[in-house]
Amino acid sequence: MSPTHFRCDVSDGIATLRLDRPDRKNPLTFDSYAELRDWFRAQPYDDTVKAVVFGSNGGNFCSGGDVHDIIGPLTKMSMKELLAFTRMTGDLVKAMIHCGKPVIAAVDGVCVGAGAIVAMASDLRIATPEARTAFLFTRVGLAGCDMGACAMLPRLIGQGRAAELLYTGRAMSAEEGATWGFFNRVVDRDALEDTAQEMARRIAAGPTFGHMMTKTMLNQEWSMSLDQAIEAEAQAQAICMQTQDFTRAYNAFVAKEKPVFEGD
Amino acid sequence: MSPTHFRCDVSDGIATLRLDRPDRKNPLTFDSYAELRDWFRAQPYDDTVKAVVFGSNGGNFCSGGDVHDIIGPLTKMSMKELLAFTRMTGDLVKAMIHCGKPVIAAVDGVCVGAGAIVAMASDLRIATPEARTAFLFTRVGLAGCDMGACAMLPRLIGQGRAAELLYTGRAMSAEEGATWGFFNRVVDRDALEDTAQEMARRIAAGPTFGHMMTKTMLNQEWSMSLDQAIEAEAQAQAICMQTQDFTRAYNAFVAKEKPVFEGD
Amino acid sequence: MSPTHFRCDVSDGIATLRLDRPDRKNPLTFDSYAELRDWFRAQPYDDTVKAVVFGSNGGNFCSGGDVHDIIGPLTKMSMKELLAFTRMTGDLVKAMIHCGKPVIAAVDGVCVGAGAIVAMASDLRIATPEARTAFLFTRVGLAGCDMGACAMLPRLIGQGRAAELLYTGRAMSAEEGATWGFFNRVVDRDALEDTAQEMARRIAAGPTFGHMMTKTMLNQEWSMSLDQAIEAEAQAQAICMQTQDFTRAYNAFVAKEKPVFEGD
Repeated sequence: MSPTHFRCDVSDGIATLRLDRPDRKNPLTFDSYAELRDWFRAQPYDDTVKAVVFGSNGGNFCSGGDVHDIIGPLTKMSMKELLAFTRMTGDLVKAMIHCGKPVIAAVDGVCVGAGAIVAMASDLRIATPEARTAFLFTRVGLAGCDMGACAMLPRLIGQGRAAELLYTGRAMSAEEGATWGFFNRVVDRDALEDTAQEMARRIAAGPTFGHMMTKTMLNQEWSMSLDQAIEAEAQAQAICMQTQDFTRAYNAFVAKEKPVFEGD
Repeated sequence: MSPTHFRCDVSDGIATLRLDRPDRKNPLTFDSYAELRDWFRAQPYDDTVKAVVFGSNGGNFCSGGDVHDIIGPLTKMSMKELLAFTRMTGDLVKAMIHCGKPVIAAVDGVCVGAGAIVAMASDLRIATPEARTAFLFTRVGLAGCDMGACAMLPRLIGQGRAAELLYTGRAMSAEEGATWGFFNRVVDRDALEDTAQEMARRIAAGPTFGHMMTKTMLNQEWSMSLDQAIEAEAQAQAICMQTQDFTRAYNAFVAKEKPVFEGD
Repeated sequence: MSPTHFRCDVSDGIATLRLDRPDRKNPLTFDSYAELRDWFRAQPYDDTVKAVVFGSNGGNFCSGGDVHDIIGPLTKMSMKELLAFTRMTGDLVKAMIHCGKPVIAAVDGVCVGAGAIVAMASDLRIATPEARTAFLFTRVGLAGCDMGACAMLPRLIGQGRAAELLYTGRAMSAEEGATWGFFNRVVDRDALEDTAQEMARRIAAGPTFGHMMTKTMLNQEWSMSLDQAIEAEAQAQAICMQTQDFTRAYNAFVAKEKPVFEGD
């Protein structure tokens, strides 16, 4: 699958995606939404990719749904068409959280609207000091509840900070994002790509079957009771204990070597 | 509706509430609990109020349930009467989270017991450096689980910090509250009122139908699975896309003007 | 019950537990897992213990499941045996969260694997600057979903920071742990024991029936809706209002004395 509405480079088990209209700060379109959804949906069946980097392009991450290509048409749609659209955008987030592989967002510059959602739906987030992240749905007359934001943002940065960002649509600075737990790291612009790739390489060199299970359970336990979550993890970890990577790690420890994981 | 047990001033679409016994740091009574509950319950049917400020009075926010008026009588009640009381206090929190409008708490001085709960159940919180917030139920021999605290406080400041405050009843300083995400801002005492009103005005000038939906979904998705939350938001946002405020924002953008929202 | 696989000293209503193989940084074994589980399971029926301190020993908290005693054998087990093991480890966490008494972890030095889980499953956590906490399951070829980590860690430190720790297995410093809300306090090594004991004494001197209810509801409301949680707390707090400790606090207040709680 070779996407035509965004860039995708696969190298050493790491897929690096980026939107590719840097002159307009990389807006999403109906086509790129759908193609990204399909790309992530294909990931559980593709063993060649071990980790995903969602990168910036030309100094910006993503400007969200394009005003002319998306917002204009939406103002003229029937409810049936509108729901088809909002479900498609939600399906992109669902596809990301079910893709089975850690996704690292490398955020520079503008990261707004659906772009902020893509960063939020990633597993890890690295920013430059120039990153400006805004859940600005309220600015275009809509609600903050877009693509899962009212569920996910509170668990990343706390309910009170999430409420402020969603009601006001104001930008979160990179520094706020790091202090609040949205960004895992802030690095200078010229180190962004290397830092994200290095983090992806490190994760891809780990037990990728285990990572898939970690990602599955972080999602799966979202609304379980504590007792249910503990039982679910007992089952999930027992499965992982029958992988070869577990044995490889033990053997390496006994041999006083560094384990080499193979993802099975 | 003109309340007699608390002050309520409505101006330019913003309702400003405050308890009104500053000599006793504004305790709650059976009457003010019930009247506040009824006031918030009426809000979903009142289009004139777009945002609510819950303010301080005489340098303090609220000293909680009055020891003489409330705690004394409670020690003599039957279980049926006790449950009627605890349900009434819980109904105030339910009424606040279902009122359909952002509530901003402007917290100065003492903010304890049920007062801390009112601040917690608001959407946004501004404090002065003098604000002292204590979930002090344990100090009067009770449990920390009061009016939703064991559910809401952990999602605002994290499970470990919430546990400390609820087990010890110790005061959280304004600085801790800001660092931990309980307070959205800390401002000097003489700026508290203006800051809260300005925040309320800014929110009230936004798409208030969208805000109602944001508030609804922040509550509604509390215990949904991630996939359920994403579907719920697809439906909620599709509804918002048929409001005129969405079209107004698009038209304003095309005309290079600032949108004027009307809440429908 | 006098445990043989860990140390347990009970004094003035405070039980102080510690693993006791300091030369190996206090690993867990099949035996100590099971005995700890049984000890915590007995707590709801034991009124003599009011609070629990889980301490360090010889400069370290716990090095997790012993590589030779546990990991080696696990690599050779059937699925039935593996599930029996992961369920037993999960049962330790369940026993801790259902024990009815606040548990304070006093963390020095190494706190990794199942040791990090024991700290996480405690109610409060104090650390020394030397504490290094790592959820290092990924390093031994497994998933981060161990004993409830994918459910509990995100609610302590936020979803994004938890994801990083669980995918990479990297150590969280004491400073990070305090900033992120994992640790309630960081104190110098020579103050760790006293600080933990003092916190335990303060909690044990409070209304312990109320504390039991606080702990119960912090767990119980984990996955409730907000409205359900508020009703659940109305019931729980009404029960607490019929305890003598509530009356004792009121009487002490009227008499301008400090209340003496007795836990009933």
